Amino acid sequence: MRMSFLLLCAAARGTTAFNLPSLSASQLRSTSLRSVTTTRLHSTSSDSSNFDYDLLVIGGGSGGVRASRIASGHGAKVALLETKLSHGVDPYYSAIGGTCVNVGCVPKKLMVFASRYPGEIREMEGYGWKGASEGTFDWKVFLDKKNKEITRLNNVYQNFVLKNAGVEVIEARGTLTGPNSIQVHTTATGESSTLTAKNIIIAVGGWPFKPDIPGIEHAITSNEIFYLEEQPKRMVVVGGGFIALEFATIMDGLGTDVTLMYRGDLFLRGFDDDMRTHLKEEMENNSGIDLKFNTDPKEIRKQDDGSFLVIDQDGNEVECDSILYATGRKGKIDGLNLESAGVHTEKSFIPVNEYSQTNVPSIYAVGDVTDRIALTPVALMEGHRLADTVFGGMDRPVDHEFVASTVFTTPEIGTVGYSEQEAVEKYGDIDVYKNRFRAMKHSFPQSETYSLFKLIVESKTQRVVGCHVATDGAGEMVQGVAIAIKMGATKEDFDNTIGIHPTSAEELVTMRTPSYYYRDGQKVDKLE
Amino acid sequence: MRMSFLLLCAAARGTTAFNLPSLSASQLRSTSLRSVTTTRLHSTSSDSSNFDYDLLVIGGGSGGVRASRIASGHGAKVALLETKLSHGVDPYYSAIGGTCVNVGCVPKKLMVFASRYPGEIREMEGYGWKGASEGTFDWKVFLDKKNKEITRLNNVYQNFVLKNAGVEVIEARGTLTGPNSIQVHTTATGESSTLTAKNIIIAVGGWPFKPDIPGIEHAITSNEIFYLEEQPKRMVVVGGGFIALEFATIMDGLGTDVTLMYRGDLFLRGFDDDMRTHLKEEMENNSGIDLKFNTDPKEIRKQDDGSFLVIDQDGNEVECDSILYATGRKGKIDGLNLESAGVHTEKSFIPVNEYSQTNVPSIYAVGDVTDRIALTPVALMEGHRLADTVFGGMDRPVDHEFVASTVFTTPEIGTVGYSEQEAVEKYGDIDVYKNRFRAMKHSFPQSETYSLFKLIVESKTQRVVGCHVATDGAGEMVQGVAIAIKMGATKEDFDNTIGIHPTSAEELVTMRTPSYYYRDGQKVDKLE
Repeated sequence: MRMSFLLLCAAARGTTAFNLPSLSASQLRSTSLRSVTTTRLHSTSSDSSNFDYDLLVIGGGSGGVRASRIASGHGAKVALLETKLSHGVDPYYSAIGGTCVNVGCVPKKLMVFASRYPGEIREMEGYGWKGASEGTFDWKVFLDKKNKEITRLNNVYQNFVLKNAGVEVIEARGTLTGPNSIQVHTTATGESSTLTAKNIIIAVGGWPFKPDIPGIEHAITSNEIFYLEEQPKRMVVVGGGFIALEFATIMDGLGTDVTLMYRGDLFLRGFDDDMRTHLKEEMENNSGIDLKFNTDPKEIRKQDDGSFLVIDQDGNEVECDSILYATGRKGKIDGLNLESAGVHTEKSFIPVNEYSQTNVPSIYAVGDVTDRIALTPVALMEGHRLADTVFGGMDRPVDHEFVASTVFTTPEIGTVGYSEQEAVEKYGDIDVYKNRFRAMKHSFPQSETYSLFKLIVESKTQRVVGCHVATDGAGEMVQGVAIAIKMGATKEDFDNTIGIHPTSAEELVTMRTPSYYYRDGQKVDKLE
Repeated sequence: MRMSFLLLCAAARGTTAFNLPSLSASQLRSTSLRSVTTTRLHSTSSDSSNFDYDLLVIGGGSGGVRASRIASGHGAKVALLETKLSHGVDPYYSAIGGTCVNVGCVPKKLMVFASRYPGEIREMEGYGWKGASEGTFDWKVFLDKKNKEITRLNNVYQNFVLKNAGVEVIEARGTLTGPNSIQVHTTATGESSTLTAKNIIIAVGGWPFKPDIPGIEHAITSNEIFYLEEQPKRMVVVGGGFIALEFATIMDGLGTDVTLMYRGDLFLRGFDDDMRTHLKEEMENNSGIDLKFNTDPKEIRKQDDGSFLVIDQDGNEVECDSILYATGRKGKIDGLNLESAGVHTEKSFIPVNEYSQTNVPSIYAVGDVTDRIALTPVALMEGHRLADTVFGGMDRPVDHEFVASTVFTTPEIGTVGYSEQEAVEKYGDIDVYKNRFRAMKHSFPQSETYSLFKLIVESKTQRVVGCHVATDGAGEMVQGVAIAIKMGATKEDFDNTIGIHPTSAEELVTMRTPSYYYRDGQKVDKLE
C-alpha cells in the first residue's frame, strides 16, 4: 500500500516541498497584514504528460480547495470543478467554498452572534444598567448582509485562494468516466467535454437528509434556513445533533418560538453524558426552547392560513410557521457515476484508507463524503495531508485522534478527546475531575447560568485524555487545551500551569481532586 | 541552603502529603457541586512544642491564605493574622482575601463586565437589530451589589476556606519582635499579646504608590475607586501599567470621559511591543479615551466648583472630576518591624530565595511583597509550594517561567512566555508568526476592531516560547495555550492540532509561515 504512494510521490515531486500559508476563514473575512506569498511551480515532468492534469478535484469545499491549493504549491497541474463559483442572489447551496462557506459554519456562526445579544441585554440590569433594550431584529437586513458576505467569500476563494495558488477553477459538474477521466458539464453552456488526470480527488461533501413522512416537502433543512424570506414566528426543529441544537438556539435568540423534537431520550448522542444533561438543563432554565424528547414527527400538515401542524407518534400536534429538519446528512455522490471507475461506496459515503485513498488507486476522497469526522478543519487536514503525500513527497497519513470541536449553542460545548463513557471503555481505569459553577459574569445577574468543566484522566499514565467544557466561549477556550492534549499532557502538566485570574478557564488548571474514579470499568467514589 | 529545608520538612512532616482541592475565585463565587473535603491533622510533634504555632502568617490575601490552608492540611498548627475579616459597609481596602478579593481582580473584573455592554450594543445594529439601547448606568446599584459580593467572599474565605481547613484566624495586626515571635495587636480591643511560631510567613501584599506633587491629596488610587460615591463625569487616569489601562477602559465603557496620561512614549512597558502598539490603536479607534503620552502631571489644582485641573509639565491643563493614580505599587511593610528579626528589605520589598525564604531562615515571604510577579495565581503557587516544602515534606521551589497573564482592557491582551524583544535577547534566532485580522464577530458591525495574534518560536529547537493575543476573551483563550507552552510545545505541536472552526483561536494553530525572523539578533524578512 505504502509503495504506491512513494511511487506517486516520486513521480509528482520534482520540486522541493514548502509550506504555503494556511488561510482560515477568519482570516479570509478580515484584512490581513500577513503577506501571503504564493509560488507557481507547475510540474512539467513527463510522467504526467499522458494526462491533461496531475490532479482533478471534484468539489470546491474546504477539503477540495485545500488539497488543490497545496498540490499546486507542490508543483502539480491542478484543476478544480465546482458547479457554481458564487452563490449569487438566488439561494444556491453548493457554490465554491462548499458547505462551510455557503450553508454551514460561516453563516451559522454569524447567526449565532446575532442571536446572543438579547441574552446579553437580559443580564445588564444585574450590573446596574437600567432601561436597556434589544430593539427589534430585522431578518432581511441580516440576510442581505449575510448574502453579501458569502458572495465576498466565494470571490476570495476563487480569486485569492485558488487562482493565486495556480489552480484552474472550472465552473462545471463532474462525472467520472473511469479511474483517470472525468466528463465535465460546463454550468454556463451545458456543454460537455472529457478531461483526464493522473489523480482524482472527490470532495463533494454532504447534503441534508429528510425522512420520508407525509408532508415532508413542507420542511426545510439547514440549506434553506439561510435563505428564508421571513423570520418564522414559530418553528419546529427536528433532530438531536449539533445542527439541530445550534439552529434551535439561534432562532430562539432571535425571537422565534422554538420547539425542538427529538426521537431519543437526550440530544447530542456521542458527546459526554454530563455535557448533554448540562446543556439540556441550561436550555430549560435560560432559553425559551420547548424541548420534546422521545418525540418523532409522523406527519406534517399544511393549514389554510399557511401554517403547519407537526403531528408526533402519539398524535400530539404542534402548530408552527416553519419546520427545520436536521436529522442527518448523506454523502453527495448522486450523479458522480462512481461505478464507472469502480469506486466502492458504503451507503452514500466513500470509504478511504489513512491516506484518503479509495479502493481505486488513482482516486481519493476527502471531507464529509468520506464519513470520518464531518468538520471543516478535519477536511482541511485530510486535503492538506493528501496533497503533501501525493505531490509533496511526504508521508502524511490522516490523524483523527484528539480533534477538538465545539457546539455553538448557549452555552457552547467545547470538547477534545474522549468522553467519560468512551474513556472507561478504552482505559478501564480513569479519574474524573468535574466542576459545575456559576461563572463570574453571571453572578450579578443571578441568572441560573452555570458552567460545567470536566477532565478525563487515564489513571495509569495520568494522561489527560478528555476535556469537556460547557461555558461562554468554550470554542475559544478549548483550542489551546487541544494542543496540550494532543501533545500528551498529563494532569501534572495541567497542575503546573499557573491560572489566569479571574477567568473561567483557570478551572482547567485548578481542579486538584478527582470527583470520582473508575476502576476496572466500575465507578468508584473514593479510592481505598 | 537546601539542607535547612530538609530539616524543616522532617520536623514538620509526621503526616502523609495529600492534595487539598484548589479553590479559585470563580468557584468561590459559585455554587459548586464538587465536594470539598478537608482534614485536620494538627501536628503534635514535640519539635514544635516550644512555640505557640508551627506557622504564623501575617496577611490574609491570596498567598497567605493558600499557604496557611495547605500547611494546615499537612498537619501544621497554623494561625493567620488579618487586620479586618470583612470589609463591611465602610471602605476598607485590606480585609481578608487581600487585594484580589477586596480591591483587585474580583471587583475589577466585575466592573469590566459592566463596562463592556455599551460596546456590545454599538455592534448590534450591524447584525440587523434596530433600536437597541444600553439605557443608563447606575453606579450606586453596581457598587452596592459589589460590596455585598465582596462581603460574601470575605465570609467564604474566613469560614469556608480557612476555618474548615483548620486555620485559626485572628483579626489583628502583626508586628515582628524576633525571628519566631510576633506582637499581635487585636483590631477589636486594641490589646496586644505575643505569639511565637516555628515559622513565619509575611504575606502583606502591596499598596498603591502616588508621587509627591502639589495637590496629590486630591487623587485617588485603585483602592478608593471601588468606593467612589458617584461616578465621575470626567476622569484623568495617570499611569501606563495594566491597572491604569484597565480602569481607563472600565470608566470609558461606563460612560465617563477619560483622559489617560502617561509619561512614557507608550504604555504597557515590558509587554510585547506589537501588542502595546495594537492596544493603543484599538483604544484610539474604538474607545473614547483621550490618550496623552509623554505627559507627566506636575500639579493638581482643586477648583471652586469641586472639579480639578491636572496640569502637566508643559502647563497644559485638563479639567476633570476625579483623578486616578495608578503609577505603581509598593510592598506594604510599614509597621511590620522587620528589623527586629533582621529581615533584609530592598526598598519596600522583601527579597526571598526560590523557596520563598528570606535571609532569616524561619521567616518566609510570598506574594506581592516579594516583588516577583504580582499576580494572584502566582502568590497562590508561591504559598502552596512553600507550604508543601516546609510542612509537606516535598521539594517544591517556585516556578515563575511561562506564567500566563491577561490585561482586561478591550481588547484583552493575553500573554504567556517571552515577548519578541525578550526572545531575541535570550535566543538570538527566533521565528515570528503574526497575524492581524478582523474577528468574525466584528465583521458585520464594520467596527474597526482588529485582533492581533503572535507566536514567538525559538528557531533552533522550534519551541514556542511566546504567545501573545489581543482579542475578545484573550484571557480565556490563552489559559490552554499556557499548558502547552509550559510543556515545551514546538511549532509542530501547534501545527498538528486541528482548528476549531469558526473561532478566533484557530489562528493559533493555523499560522504556517513566519512573518519574519531574527538571526543573531538581527531582524530578517526572508531567509536566504
